[in-house]
Amino acid sequence: MKPLSPTDQLFLWLEKRQQPMHVGGLQLFSFPEDAPDDYVARLADQLREHTLVTPPFNQRLDYRFGQPVWVEDEHLDLEHHFRFEALPTPGRIRELLTFISAEHSHLMDRERPMWEVHLIEGLGERQFALYTKVHHSLVDGVSAMRMVTRTLSEDPEQRGMPPIWALPPRVRSESGEGASLWRSVGHLLGESGKQLGTIPTVARELLRTVNEARKDPAYHSIFHAPRSVLNQRITGSRRFAAQSFCLKRIKAVCQAYGTTVNDVVTAMCATALRGYLMNQEALPAKPLIAMVPVSLRRDDSSGGNQVGVILANLHTDEPDPAERLVKIHQGMQEAKERYAHMSPEEIINYTALTLAPAAFHLLTGMAPNWQTFNVVISNVPGPGETRYWNGAKMEGMYPVSIAMDRLALNMTLTSYNDQVEFGLIGCRRTLPSLQRMLDYLDEGLAELEAAAGL
Amino acid sequence: MKPLSPTDQLFLWLEKRQQPMHVGGLQLFSFPEDAPDDYVARLADQLREHTLVTPPFNQRLDYRFGQPVWVEDEHLDLEHHFRFEALPTPGRIRELLTFISAEHSHLMDRERPMWEVHLIEGLGERQFALYTKVHHSLVDGVSAMRMVTRTLSEDPEQRGMPPIWALPPRVRSESGEGASLWRSVGHLLGESGKQLGTIPTVARELLRTVNEARKDPAYHSIFHAPRSVLNQRITGSRRFAAQSFCLKRIKAVCQAYGTTVNDVVTAMCATALRGYLMNQEALPAKPLIAMVPVSLRRDDSSGGNQVGVILANLHTDEPDPAERLVKIHQGMQEAKERYAHMSPEEIINYTALTLAPAAFHLLTGMAPNWQTFNVVISNVPGPGETRYWNGAKMEGMYPVSIAMDRLALNMTLTSYNDQVEFGLIGCRRTLPSLQRMLDYLDEGLAELEAAAGL
Repeated sequence: MKPLSPTDQLFLWLEKRQQPMHVGGLQLFSFPEDAPDDYVARLADQLREHTLVTPPFNQRLDYRFGQPVWVEDEHLDLEHHFRFEALPTPGRIRELLTFISAEHSHLMDRERPMWEVHLIEGLGERQFALYTKVHHSLVDGVSAMRMVTRTLSEDPEQRGMPPIWALPPRVRSESGEGASLWRSVGHLLGESGKQLGTIPTVARELLRTVNEARKDPAYHSIFHAPRSVLNQRITGSRRFAAQSFCLKRIKAVCQAYGTTVNDVVTAMCATALRGYLMNQEALPAKPLIAMVPVSLRRDDSSGGNQVGVILANLHTDEPDPAERLVKIHQGMQEAKERYAHMSPEEIINYTALTLAPAAFHLLTGMAPNWQTFNVVISNVPGPGETRYWNGAKMEGMYPVSIAMDRLALNMTLTSYNDQVEFGLIGCRRTLPSLQRMLDYLDEGLAELEAAAGL
Repeated sequence: MKPLSPTDQLFLWLEKRQQPMHVGGLQLFSFPEDAPDDYVARLADQLREHTLVTPPFNQRLDYRFGQPVWVEDEHLDLEHHFRFEALPTPGRIRELLTFISAEHSHLMDRERPMWEVHLIEGLGERQFALYTKVHHSLVDGVSAMRMVTRTLSEDPEQRGMPPIWALPPRVRSESGEGASLWRSVGHLLGESGKQLGTIPTVARELLRTVNEARKDPAYHSIFHAPRSVLNQRITGSRRFAAQSFCLKRIKAVCQAYGTTVNDVVTAMCATALRGYLMNQEALPAKPLIAMVPVSLRRDDSSGGNQVGVILANLHTDEPDPAERLVKIHQGMQEAKERYAHMSPEEIINYTALTLAPAAFHLLTGMAPNWQTFNVVISNVPGPGETRYWNGAKMEGMYPVSIAMDRLALNMTLTSYNDQVEFGLIGCRRTLPSLQRMLDYLDEGLAELEAAAGL
């Protein structure tokens, strides 16, 4: 029995039927060369034999004296958690994305450990997919990515590799810095000193702190995001879109403009948002602001990663793509320099205040007049070399994150081998034809290449 | 804009994440003889062309001055409602039931018209399935069955038949007597005279009425169901099990014992429950009581069907199967004779009181000391002859109903052609290995045949 941290409780509180709080990951594999045609069905049978489920995948939610706790599920029913499924004809990526869109819309069963692994056959020519779905209160996105990576090997010959739910448990908790963003909100409220208590208490505290910060010129700058269609109430159905981009192409653009990879992918997102919103005649006059979590490791730091947020001006009002990239780069540089002059305590406060308006809205449903950011663009590091799972080569891996009220779109990307993998999740009513954004991402990169004469 | 009836509001109130309030139907089809291998994918393409969605399938929930109303969905997204899916290898009925179990566990999106149609390929030898899911507040089970039947034809040559969401609307409302059971509860509370108002008001009224009825010797008999594992709190995941039985076999048993078809299927359910609970060492000493909705049409009635409930003693304490059938038959006869002497007003009151304890529990979560029944066994009439859908022969159709807190199992059956079709839906945690009940149903029929020397 282990009490939930206040941060993890937050993810339970925030969950509503139209706002599930689980994260996911989609992996694409190709069959090993010598694999039979019924390879995936055989794999399913093998996976079903892993009935010894390790922490945190054997932990279900319970309540003791009104407090949420994790307890071991003594009646774990693997058939509920591991599902073997198939794509309909013609089994293209399009059918896969439709499948993931529907699955990611479904709430998880709170009476059981909140994870599901879907093994998906019927994909193209001798390929298959794995979709892993975990509640954010159980595992955060970064830890989930790390656990997924632990199931893989660089050795194509290795066999007998367990699925994620049967990984040998680590001595150190998997839950770590990934949740730090939300932990910052807890810190703002003095999580360490007191129990969070009830939603009204938390919301009141948030509102008080935010209102005080708005008077402070040092924090005034974080309340400048425009209103946009991205910041409406969402519904319960999702659209997932994913695509791989060649890292070499992105690096060539970096070199041409003297920017970082992160600047270029942020600019691609900016261009995609601009194109999508212009097409809908809904581009705000003021530039969109993205919340970009960044790692702030310092040479002299003894601890783990420090996570902060950058409020990146996406310059969506700038028509020239090259100019847009340069401005984004400058903004990111300035933000990083600002961080360099801040103490860890100041960084935590800044981060928490950035998140506070969103947290306030999410907890109360009340839309305040101030908005600190319009969209989340998150870059989660992934494995740098080709990985295999029991001989099956992983062709790609895509994050599937969370859409929230007033944050109808989440753009999460990760790196794998020589690719940058984009995963976009959004509310499909608020953001119709979200999949078009993939084309706009592509155009965003092509425009930059063209402008640089590449 | 059309206000929801109090009965339909009830289904919204009763819904919780672990207790979805939608009903479903599963249809099995075989390919037309001349169909190509990609027949189902082509069918999916054809169905996607039916973008003109007719009432009630174009109605979504909205609120006006705090009251729920149906309004037309002006942004209807057919891709959300119609889904083309596939079964994994080896594509047996077992994989189909697993698929339906998972799908039926998912809550529907309340921001959209609450229906989904799943076209499922990859089933056995040139077969496919259709799973239709509709929220009970939109369409009740009997009406849904009637609408499904309207999509079918007795003519194998007929083509151009629309899917359920594009049926030409009927002049008379489809919503009818099927919902009468719940309407009875409304009647008990004087629905016609006043708005139901809030859940606490309704619950208080129910409690008062039930407590008064328990003192009345005339109603005393309806509070005699034992406690059982069927009457626990449920979780959000479901198990669906379905099977066809040959009507000829059942009719032969009827003749041998001088009973009705309904008596025999009720006895089969009784035997299945007895076997399942004995296997779990959980058979109550007192016999289980089933709530069986019955049609009470009278020769002199001018209106539509009158629906009442019979509290059928299932005699699960009786070890002899033949004896059990005879006792069930006698009980049913007595109940019908009792109804014959009751006025329509008395029938409504009796029905409402029978349902009231369950309604009280469902609304408040409080488990009273009295239980009026343990399980719902419902028999919905279906088409009597072979039906076709655009040339595809329907091989079977199975109801997928609702499991509720303290009513963890629902056994709904229907008739089709020369078959009786059983659809069992239950909470898969409260009732592990529910699918075994199919074997027990089979044994139930075989035992009766053996005892009669058939």
